[in-house]
Amino acid sequence: MALIVVKFGGTSVGDIERIKNAASKVAQEVRRGNKVAVVVSAMAGVTDQLIAYCHGVTPHPNPREHDAVVATGEQVSAGLMAMALEQRGLNARSWQGWQARLRTDNGHNHARILDIDTTKLLDRLDKGEVAVLAGFQGVSEDGSITTLGRGGSDTSAVALAAALKADRCDIYTDVDGVYTADPRIVAKASKLSKISYEEMLELASLGAKVLQTRSVEMALRYRMSIQVLSTFENAIGSDLPGTLVTDEDETMENNPVTGIAHFLGAAKITLAEVTDTPGVAASIFSPLAQAGINVGAIVQTASNDGKTTNVTFTIPRGSLGRAEEIIKSEKEKIGYRNIITDSHIAKISLVGLGMRNRPGIAALMFQTLADKGINIQLIETSEINVSVVIAEDYLELALRALHTAFDLDMA
Amino acid sequence: MALIVVKFGGTSVGDIERIKNAASKVAQEVRRGNKVAVVVSAMAGVTDQLIAYCHGVTPHPNPREHDAVVATGEQVSAGLMAMALEQRGLNARSWQGWQARLRTDNGHNHARILDIDTTKLLDRLDKGEVAVLAGFQGVSEDGSITTLGRGGSDTSAVALAAALKADRCDIYTDVDGVYTADPRIVAKASKLSKISYEEMLELASLGAKVLQTRSVEMALRYRMSIQVLSTFENAIGSDLPGTLVTDEDETMENNPVTGIAHFLGAAKITLAEVTDTPGVAASIFSPLAQAGINVGAIVQTASNDGKTTNVTFTIPRGSLGRAEEIIKSEKEKIGYRNIITDSHIAKISLVGLGMRNRPGIAALMFQTLADKGINIQLIETSEINVSVVIAEDYLELALRALHTAFDLDMA
Repeated sequence: MALIVVKFGGTSVGDIERIKNAASKVAQEVRRGNKVAVVVSAMAGVTDQLIAYCHGVTPHPNPREHDAVVATGEQVSAGLMAMALEQRGLNARSWQGWQARLRTDNGHNHARILDIDTTKLLDRLDKGEVAVLAGFQGVSEDGSITTLGRGGSDTSAVALAAALKADRCDIYTDVDGVYTADPRIVAKASKLSKISYEEMLELASLGAKVLQTRSVEMALRYRMSIQVLSTFENAIGSDLPGTLVTDEDETMENNPVTGIAHFLGAAKITLAEVTDTPGVAASIFSPLAQAGINVGAIVQTASNDGKTTNVTFTIPRGSLGRAEEIIKSEKEKIGYRNIITDSHIAKISLVGLGMRNRPGIAALMFQTLADKGINIQLIETSEINVSVVIAEDYLELALRALHTAFDLDMA
Repeated sequence: MALIVVKFGGTSVGDIERIKNAASKVAQEVRRGNKVAVVVSAMAGVTDQLIAYCHGVTPHPNPREHDAVVATGEQVSAGLMAMALEQRGLNARSWQGWQARLRTDNGHNHARILDIDTTKLLDRLDKGEVAVLAGFQGVSEDGSITTLGRGGSDTSAVALAAALKADRCDIYTDVDGVYTADPRIVAKASKLSKISYEEMLELASLGAKVLQTRSVEMALRYRMSIQVLSTFENAIGSDLPGTLVTDEDETMENNPVTGIAHFLGAAKITLAEVTDTPGVAASIFSPLAQAGINVGAIVQTASNDGKTTNVTFTIPRGSLGRAEEIIKSEKEKIGYRNIITDSHIAKISLVGLGMRNRPGIAALMFQTLADKGINIQLIETSEINVSVVIAEDYLELALRALHTAFDLDMA
């Protein structure tokens, strides 16, 4: 008998029929003799509706009240899931964050999980009851409801699995696993049967939408393997046909590149002919940080006159207007000739643990793009990824060329 | 400085604009130097949507899970109201049932309030914070969310006012007070400036929809006066222009009849030629009670043959089909010739404390109806009401005639 945590995302519980379908998967696991804890997201679209209500009331909703409102989405789906399980003859009970004593810090809207008191949960799981936890939420020290931020239900699931010392953590979503590249763009992309925590973390933070970054961080910290499955295609327990996110092992070293991520949500700003004096970087980036704008890659290049430099960096596309405003208002202080913005960029990242020991990965990437006539605007690297920023129009071409060049194409 | 509980019903918080409007009324009270606790219903329509979800999953939702799902409606409006108050520069905080420690029994879907621990609430009210309580809900001994049944937010408000020893309990709804009769039918109906708890209780239980019966019971028990006001017409604090539900006093004795209620939700069943033996009533009503069908007035009359009796009674209209089925399946056991059903009936009730000392009220009622050629099908009386059942078609005619006959017409 195993203890399993099963998580269903928003599309997997998107309507009543889908909730019933998800319940049938849970029932199968119970019939196999397993103890099951379920974690659910809000029904698809509900969270957005609730956020829209908040912003209808005030442009800057009180974070505590925002969480109280938004957390209801998962409460509804947890209750409905428990009903659907009972309808199938199982004992089931919904648990809201405060009922499961999932304690978080006070960081409303993006709270971090401190711990989960599993005494009561384990007691009821031992009695054969299915626990249905409302994902995405917890309770703070002062008894307020907190939420974990976008995609937080994945994090809830991994935290619960770790706290319960579960044998498996299955995350049902609307894709059937992790691919070498987005299969909607790269027809030859193939599903990975396994991927290491570290690689998944890079892919998630570089734009792959399969799992939420923090959930992978947590999986890595607790060495809790995650199985990514599709609610719509995978039969539960059918020899694990999704992708297993787990510890690095030798089988993964075959190819230096495991997968290719891409990201379309960034914009680029270039400040031309910046006076090259000490402190100039601070004069650019401090006001942006104060405005809460996340700056990505930064590149500084000499400009034509040899006396000034050009500074280029990326920011989230949605912050472009505000960033431009701020930089223009600081023009005197920074000292630059003009500002050039571009929101038609794409970031492409090669990810693989194998890169650590293989030189030449970046070189092959640049050569492959050059051969297709694609100009590289920015470069960023880490131990296990190489990322480039290119013009958005070349995204598909670049992805397919790199997929082939790095031997990822399906045989 | 007074402590005031203000309650807003579902239409009063029916959309974002209305929530803002309600918040402005609260802000006025705070500016007058009062401490304010707000109780909110779910946004109009939301509770029905949530119930529909539950019944989409299963015809008999688990009551605990039903409550967990349905209580989210008030949680959302409480959070939004707190935001709207902050937007107006006030300090405000939403309180769910479990956060306010509004303890109830385990009667899911129709829980009864045991007590409210007001320590934390009072502490924050004293600091000038507006408390926004999610109505309709509480928490049971075992930490489950409970709901108080339809219209339960009125009960939440009165219970909170009693627990806080509030100076006033203002209930904002979509009508501007309690009328001598439904003003949509009786043009000459007038708004009562005061009404006693006992009369309001009778009116509410006899079909007047202004206040929920249990909330009036609670007001009576704790002698907590309720002011009924319209969100859309009454300016807050404007010399209390609604109806005050309060202790009986002399001013109320002027007229024996205070108001006329009507109810269209009943159906009538007549069993003709029932064998008149001991135990026959039990054989009719026990199976109905077991099926959870609420039986109202019962009348037994001799039938033409002098050996059998006719039994007539009312039930909720929605239960007619099931009741008929049950009675037909028990035909052998009960022993009757045939069953006649009628769902086109109306119940009209005169209510007034003054009736206690004035004979002839019922007689005048019957005469008034007779003069208009309206046949009385059933009669029920209590100390402070006389009710008759008539054909639904005569409802308006009867209401207007009685309103005039009992001197209730506006001068």
